[in-house]
Amino acid sequence: MPELRRDPISGRWVIISIERGKRPTDFVSPLQKRKAGGFCPFCPSNEHTTTPEIIAFRPASTPPNSPGWTLRVVPNKFPVLHIHGDLNKRGEGVFDMMNGIGAHEVIIETPDHLQSLATIPLRAVEDVLWAYYFRLADLKKDIRFKYVLIFKNEGEAAGASLDHSHSQLIALPIVPKTVREEMESSKKYYDSKERCIFCDIINQELQTGKRVIYENDKYVAISPFAPRDPFEAWILPKKHESSFSPSDKSFVSLAEALQRILKQLDRVLDTPPYNFILHTSPFKDEINDYYHWHIEILPRLIKRAGFEWGTGFFINPTPPEEATKFMREVKA
Amino acid sequence: MPELRRDPISGRWVIISIERGKRPTDFVSPLQKRKAGGFCPFCPSNEHTTTPEIIAFRPASTPPNSPGWTLRVVPNKFPVLHIHGDLNKRGEGVFDMMNGIGAHEVIIETPDHLQSLATIPLRAVEDVLWAYYFRLADLKKDIRFKYVLIFKNEGEAAGASLDHSHSQLIALPIVPKTVREEMESSKKYYDSKERCIFCDIINQELQTGKRVIYENDKYVAISPFAPRDPFEAWILPKKHESSFSPSDKSFVSLAEALQRILKQLDRVLDTPPYNFILHTSPFKDEINDYYHWHIEILPRLIKRAGFEWGTGFFINPTPPEEATKFMREVKA
Repeated sequence: MPELRRDPISGRWVIISIERGKRPTDFVSPLQKRKAGGFCPFCPSNEHTTTPEIIAFRPASTPPNSPGWTLRVVPNKFPVLHIHGDLNKRGEGVFDMMNGIGAHEVIIETPDHLQSLATIPLRAVEDVLWAYYFRLADLKKDIRFKYVLIFKNEGEAAGASLDHSHSQLIALPIVPKTVREEMESSKKYYDSKERCIFCDIINQELQTGKRVIYENDKYVAISPFAPRDPFEAWILPKKHESSFSPSDKSFVSLAEALQRILKQLDRVLDTPPYNFILHTSPFKDEINDYYHWHIEILPRLIKRAGFEWGTGFFINPTPPEEATKFMREVKA
Repeated sequence: MPELRRDPISGRWVIISIERGKRPTDFVSPLQKRKAGGFCPFCPSNEHTTTPEIIAFRPASTPPNSPGWTLRVVPNKFPVLHIHGDLNKRGEGVFDMMNGIGAHEVIIETPDHLQSLATIPLRAVEDVLWAYYFRLADLKKDIRFKYVLIFKNEGEAAGASLDHSHSQLIALPIVPKTVREEMESSKKYYDSKERCIFCDIINQELQTGKRVIYENDKYVAISPFAPRDPFEAWILPKKHESSFSPSDKSFVSLAEALQRILKQLDRVLDTPPYNFILHTSPFKDEINDYYHWHIEILPRLIKRAGFEWGTGFFINPTPPEEATKFMREVKA
């Protein structure tokens, strides 16, 4: 019998097809391994082909936009939003609109074209997290922006248009629908129970253990109860934190958790395409008792029928308890 | 300057990339035209290979599950939900679940393997709409079901696994998230204005005209103000109707509008893959003043980065006003 499961935060229902449960080998992973050769704007010596860097981690002896860096953040050359201008919020009868003001940046995670977040040194993963944090702190000063979406498209099937490992950031003058919904829903839960719903989920998952993929001193990685995608994984701080930030001024434990999960996915699913999305509180409500920041990792293993977007209703052939077992069994 | 537009019903924001506006010829349509040859379970003479038909439009002289039909409705051979059993709703701490009870049916729209909804006789399109209506009326009697999702995946890129033209139906023991949200949002609007938000949108669109693709006596087809996809189109009854039903006991005008839009999409975009989804009120609230049933047609022209599902935030390179112009210029 398939199961209908409800995600307690978003309220979406997911069909878990237990009896048709798909094993990792049932998925044909469309990710092509990275290859050397060919021109890449993100590779060292091609710095002049990107928009000038906003920040970079590089020896003090090297000038900006020259080789020697280990990480660069540059404005997207083809930004979906423009950084200059005012919002000019306006209505048109029943409709609402504003100018497409925002920031669109690219975090180039490594100088090595052949590496991924799963294979770079742990220290480099920490740096990626620090880059996210620094950019968030900087963009927060711009009063036009309400939210910064940080996400990664790994592999063509996940939407990556360039092979070289990178994440993206879009600063927005609005709070996106999903974030707003998560905030409202977790606030409602808090209002009735005086507890954070994410904290409750973490406690329950740590007690039963059956969906816990990994934990270290500060973070836990789980297969969510009602995952949209096979092998979907969430990484959350164990202690309540409403906004993305280093724990005790360090990103070591988070980098460990993130890289561990990515390594495990690569092992179990043969380097699958995936997206991850950082979910954090909007700027104007950064510190609160009810929202709990986290990272959602969504492997792109199954072709989605468009109706699933149109309905917010998902069919997942792999129960999260099974996915958890496979993830635990491999060595990272 | 790109524009940020808000869909007034769902509340989702969409970036309309006006200056990078894509013309129809910029999209490479991945739909392969239908080909003859090869075994097809939906073709006449193969009726025994499907699950026995629930209803069929066929001469009285022909027995069930034999050739001669013009339309068949059959249970999906690989249903995502099971028809037999009880719901056994239960909790698991903070989580909610129930058995995967439901109906999953396939509407085979034509006996001709090479035709599509855009090319079959208008009368056959009417029959498809009648089949939807009859199945809704029948499934409504099952008190376990709260909603029936009716949708079509046309082309492999839209999720179709079989070539032969068909739609699908999933009867659900829950109301899916998107429907629930649309109901809540339009109720809120009605509560404050005593008007249906869809009626307001239709009136405004008919006045300005710039996003009206087509209208006949009873239906209007528009490019929505904040479309997720290039050439997204909605078909709505002009007069307020909360649930999908024939207008004056006829589906002629709706069939005309639907087929017209599908023909125009085929002409403008060279038979693109698409999904359409019927949005109608849930069974327990079928007649109401605030929700307005409609069909949403979503061509699958651009590869979605997974982050767009994860955030409910979309980037659309074709302004709906441009799409409307292209659609109006072609002969259907």
